[in-house]
Amino acid sequence: MIKVAVMGHGVVGGGVTEILLKNAESIAKKVKQEIYIEKVLDLRDFPDSPISDRFTKDFNDIISNDEISIVVEVMGGLKPAYDFVKQCLEKGKSVVTSNKELVAAKGAELLAIAEKNNVNFLFEASVGGGIPIIRPLHQCLSANNIEKINGILNGTTNFILNKMINDKMSFEDALALAQEKGYAERNPAADIEGHDACRKICILASLVYGTHVYPDSVHTEGITKVSLTDVEYASKWGGVVKLIASARISAKDNTKQEIMVAPMFVSRDCQLSNVDGVYNEILVRGDSSGSVGFYGRGAGKLPTASAVVADVMDCVLHKDERRDIMWKDGNGENVVPYEEYENAMYVRFSADDEQTALAKANEIFGKCDVIEKIDATADTAIVTPELSYADFVEKSKKFAELC
Amino acid sequence: MIKVAVMGHGVVGGGVTEILLKNAESIAKKVKQEIYIEKVLDLRDFPDSPISDRFTKDFNDIISNDEISIVVEVMGGLKPAYDFVKQCLEKGKSVVTSNKELVAAKGAELLAIAEKNNVNFLFEASVGGGIPIIRPLHQCLSANNIEKINGILNGTTNFILNKMINDKMSFEDALALAQEKGYAERNPAADIEGHDACRKICILASLVYGTHVYPDSVHTEGITKVSLTDVEYASKWGGVVKLIASARISAKDNTKQEIMVAPMFVSRDCQLSNVDGVYNEILVRGDSSGSVGFYGRGAGKLPTASAVVADVMDCVLHKDERRDIMWKDGNGENVVPYEEYENAMYVRFSADDEQTALAKANEIFGKCDVIEKIDATADTAIVTPELSYADFVEKSKKFAELC
Repeated sequence: MIKVAVMGHGVVGGGVTEILLKNAESIAKKVKQEIYIEKVLDLRDFPDSPISDRFTKDFNDIISNDEISIVVEVMGGLKPAYDFVKQCLEKGKSVVTSNKELVAAKGAELLAIAEKNNVNFLFEASVGGGIPIIRPLHQCLSANNIEKINGILNGTTNFILNKMINDKMSFEDALALAQEKGYAERNPAADIEGHDACRKICILASLVYGTHVYPDSVHTEGITKVSLTDVEYASKWGGVVKLIASARISAKDNTKQEIMVAPMFVSRDCQLSNVDGVYNEILVRGDSSGSVGFYGRGAGKLPTASAVVADVMDCVLHKDERRDIMWKDGNGENVVPYEEYENAMYVRFSADDEQTALAKANEIFGKCDVIEKIDATADTAIVTPELSYADFVEKSKKFAELC
Repeated sequence: MIKVAVMGHGVVGGGVTEILLKNAESIAKKVKQEIYIEKVLDLRDFPDSPISDRFTKDFNDIISNDEISIVVEVMGGLKPAYDFVKQCLEKGKSVVTSNKELVAAKGAELLAIAEKNNVNFLFEASVGGGIPIIRPLHQCLSANNIEKINGILNGTTNFILNKMINDKMSFEDALALAQEKGYAERNPAADIEGHDACRKICILASLVYGTHVYPDSVHTEGITKVSLTDVEYASKWGGVVKLIASARISAKDNTKQEIMVAPMFVSRDCQLSNVDGVYNEILVRGDSSGSVGFYGRGAGKLPTASAVVADVMDCVLHKDERRDIMWKDGNGENVVPYEEYENAMYVRFSADDEQTALAKANEIFGKCDVIEKIDATADTAIVTPELSYADFVEKSKKFAELC
């Protein structure tokens, strides 16, 4: 029998205990022993839980219990999760977490502490909820050099954009609906401003490229400025607007990466354009494998909890041997500054003399594609050739002055 | 340094040596030692290979070389692959294979021999080419009970069906094009009759449900009878025709599975309907994870080879510890006979008096959905309610007699 503790009995934590109890028999068969929940840490009371007698409000009941060899951290946030996780690892307990904020902020440090103490620190559930992505990237695609990753990593924003695309709902109405359905928090900033997707792409990039990527090195735009007009222009262009988190090897320096989160036009030919509702998909391009995709529910109680439990099972099966997931700390120099990224840019403007303005756009940006108008009175929309963001900002200013 | 042998220098084998040589540095960094190709077995000569001096035509050079601890089998077919692999495992060498025929026919036996000799027998590349599927199913989704798997597992047939759907090409023309492009063999039976997809779903079902599923227990239909008319009716119905390999837990007896390969109508809402060309996708539904999808190139030199090399790397990293992939032998009783599977069936017929025929269809099959006609002179097409295949056959006879 192996004893585990679960820190946090919120949505995911409740799912973890539910799966460990419900699937106890099949899980025990697979890991060849019983997994017993010794303690659940939460400041609230849960008198109706079938294991209500095992709840505690005191972290000491976990850290000082030497029989507990695996600790699940599903509290979220950095305080007190970071301190608790660190103490557990230092005490020789393996830790499994779904906490993307923690891994994105402290991953390199916690992995180093885990290595030093010869225990595991696993976090499959921190990206893509129930979608297997950390382990496949690390193991199955390990013979590849990963050229790029493009992902829809936030279900809330994908739901909102879908409602705008399919039902012509405004951003505000779609957000209100997402909140009503429980997909968005009352304070939705982490989702709609792109921070959640940013943390996830930081974790994937750290894993794949071997150096920690901190969220503050990553250019992050949310979807708050996307209007129904933009959604319609994306459709005329031949695609849809999606919030894409991307990481790619720099073409100029293959030791560095270009990482960003922003709403982008995605062509209808691309698998990512077909991802509906709160689903996530991550497309990974390896130099040998070509494009490989991972699709599923990126959040939610049981999907996320099932990924946590799978990591716990992996810890049980490999308790005398560490998984070799590891990356070194980074100082931000591994990430190319956003100003240097070269992308084609979508520009929308109104001008009294459209033909003159278009001629100027072509002169300033280089030959632009003009998107068919959504109606006669609408803005003019163009897509520029690929150019660096710094270049784009400068040329945009010039264009605005001339128009 | 770890020494490996590669048996077979065909398409996949050539890819394996190419990746091991090309990505030698990054691979060595990941597995913390050099992987050295000691021998390549092939009956042909390859004087232009950069390692031409390490080729041999004699299996004894591999089996009797105790320095070779990992053997890659990429010859395909059962003879002599089965005998060679068995000897390698018995001699204490780990084996990595991409050979789906071998795993589908002999998986349980070879896994047992590997366990007895405390070595690994890994086969990630046998299903879905470069798509990570074996390991994610086994590890990441291990906290789930897998309710069903539906997959497009054969790229050749998907390419052919796509050409029929998008370009209104006949089956024969699309097959000829697939052969011209090198997607289909000169003898295309294994692909178009569904045997290749069958082997792959057998491997996935064996892995997930723990008992070997032999191809001859699985009802297998190919796409040779699919006509352009069917493709058009699928479109009118709201979807596309895809060759689907499926495995699901029997609703009547959860210790048994229903497994089949057949062309099916796939609704446009389903991710599988968007899989184009030679790509594969596998959708897996876990009781906790919900639907999870895996997408990518299901065949091809480098995608498949990259999965083989990842398995080799896993063997190197875990050389003193076996992966716990295992299933027991089966006698076919774990698979429900096809006659008992309940599905809605698509029926196409011509009748002089259509209204009377439809009334009879409703009387015999139960209330059927009538698909809008593709043109006035076309056959009538209906979809029956769910019924067992045995029931369907009997009722179809009765219907044919009455019409």
